[in-house]
Amino acid sequence: MKKEKYELQYGRLLEKIEKRIEKLFNNKKPASLYEPCKYALESGGKRLRPVLLLLSTKAAGGKFNDAYNAALAVEIFHNFTLVHDDIMDNSPIRRGRPSLYKKFDTNTAILAGDNLIAFAYKLLLKDCQKNTNQIIEIFTQGIIDVCEGQSLDKEFETRRNVSLREYRNMISKKTAALLTVCTGIGGLIAGANYEVVRILMNYGKNLGMAFQIQDDLLDITADEKTFGKKVGSDLIEGKKTYLFLKALEKAKGEDKKKLLRVIKNSGIESNEIESYKSIYEKYGVPEDAKKEIDKYTRSALNGLNKLPDNEGSLMLRWLANSLINRTK
Amino acid sequence: MKKEKYELQYGRLLEKIEKRIEKLFNNKKPASLYEPCKYALESGGKRLRPVLLLLSTKAAGGKFNDAYNAALAVEIFHNFTLVHDDIMDNSPIRRGRPSLYKKFDTNTAILAGDNLIAFAYKLLLKDCQKNTNQIIEIFTQGIIDVCEGQSLDKEFETRRNVSLREYRNMISKKTAALLTVCTGIGGLIAGANYEVVRILMNYGKNLGMAFQIQDDLLDITADEKTFGKKVGSDLIEGKKTYLFLKALEKAKGEDKKKLLRVIKNSGIESNEIESYKSIYEKYGVPEDAKKEIDKYTRSALNGLNKLPDNEGSLMLRWLANSLINRTK
Repeated sequence: MKKEKYELQYGRLLEKIEKRIEKLFNNKKPASLYEPCKYALESGGKRLRPVLLLLSTKAAGGKFNDAYNAALAVEIFHNFTLVHDDIMDNSPIRRGRPSLYKKFDTNTAILAGDNLIAFAYKLLLKDCQKNTNQIIEIFTQGIIDVCEGQSLDKEFETRRNVSLREYRNMISKKTAALLTVCTGIGGLIAGANYEVVRILMNYGKNLGMAFQIQDDLLDITADEKTFGKKVGSDLIEGKKTYLFLKALEKAKGEDKKKLLRVIKNSGIESNEIESYKSIYEKYGVPEDAKKEIDKYTRSALNGLNKLPDNEGSLMLRWLANSLINRTK
Repeated sequence: MKKEKYELQYGRLLEKIEKRIEKLFNNKKPASLYEPCKYALESGGKRLRPVLLLLSTKAAGGKFNDAYNAALAVEIFHNFTLVHDDIMDNSPIRRGRPSLYKKFDTNTAILAGDNLIAFAYKLLLKDCQKNTNQIIEIFTQGIIDVCEGQSLDKEFETRRNVSLREYRNMISKKTAALLTVCTGIGGLIAGANYEVVRILMNYGKNLGMAFQIQDDLLDITADEKTFGKKVGSDLIEGKKTYLFLKALEKAKGEDKKKLLRVIKNSGIESNEIESYKSIYEKYGVPEDAKKEIDKYTRSALNGLNKLPDNEGSLMLRWLANSLINRTK
């Protein structure tokens, strides 16, 4: 029963966010800049980040209505990174549509991304009634972290030896940092004290870590129909995911040689996916990933215990649990 | 005598700025991100924007020492735009060195540019002791303006009809907006009231307009040795500069046809520069440009009359005069 109530509330928040996104660039000129910006934002998705921000404001005793602009700001931040990352990663498709640089061109995508960063700050400022310096600082540090994370991710593509420790550092910047921004700013908008903001940021960071490893796991265990993308893509692209690095750490003999070939050839062929999946399973790697996801999720939830129960904190709790049970 | 004193003081400020720039990215990791950031900033130049900011703080009754971080922030902002513009404009050379995307690669240049934006905010925040919301708002609006200006500039490249009015709107965003940011933030850091900030921003905007048209004029009238780049480059590239658009407005018959050919062919050959220069001169276009530069410079200086004389306001006055007499 509670689950349905939370899902309903998520849906209501999502609807409000979508309505605001629709109007975001109305009547803005030049069209050569704002049509691509609009395109970048209208691709849908879970809108996880703005919802996280809104729930954090609520959890810290604030009102949803005080945080909608900031919620849009983090969604714009997220989409700016997708726009520029797609260029860097040569990813022609994003959520079933041409990536921005394919729909328009690379120059347009660079400029639209830049403008989105500034637009995010512009919206964020509208919800800075107090704690402005801290809010802008957290947001700014988030962009720096994400850039550093992306830089490390690109570096890993061509490096032979990447440790799990380095991998965790990379995803803590590339993925978890933005979720930390969402929960931290959510708290600050509510005027929360240092301790509450710290708890919320800790939740965001751990959730982000769990979220990314879950992503890595789904790539190999998901049901292709529900998943929406090809299972095993990370292996095909030769990505150094949690599962791959863990398998490399544990595998011996021929198995290890086979894994090293993925690095050497920068990926595998589609018809090899099953044989690599078998190696992962032989060494219990999916179970390791699940344990790691559980560990981070528990850390996220543990911190929340210190916050009083309210719609915000209860939904953050529900959200952490549903994210680790997601199938896409 | 005064002139020499001001030049000396400019030199002193420049030296302090350079020293701070040198240390900016020391020990920052990953190197794959921060080496390009360092490269982007160490190319020298006049450092006009940080000096403008410092002088504005002084003019509004503040101290240089309260504004060095903000001064670096506007210089970083400027260099971020150069890094991304060079990709978009296919400009392989910047200040006599390979542009960042040539020295490294396009992906690195995109990411370094993104990181520079955030780094600029990070530094700016350090000097936000008061007026934070206004300072961040002006800075953010500056980035949006510059993106809009760049978008218009790219749009003009492929458009047949561009009016002088549209040109002025474009340069007011692409060039003048950032100088407006410098003078406005300089004033706000000093805690200046609305009227003083308005005067300073008005000065920055008019100076920026004069500065850009002077740039357009120098392209055709400069002495190649002092200028440092090829005279007539704008014509070769088919740029719709103030001079070109003014000539197009005034020319008749064969002259007009010849100018229209520049648009049709997206530029001219090196050996045609002299003949186009003759058309400009026949219709008095360089004089028109000079009048326009004078008009904007006078507007910039007139506003300053309302500020009390001090080192800052006197140097802003001197700066406006020396910029219109520059030869490079």
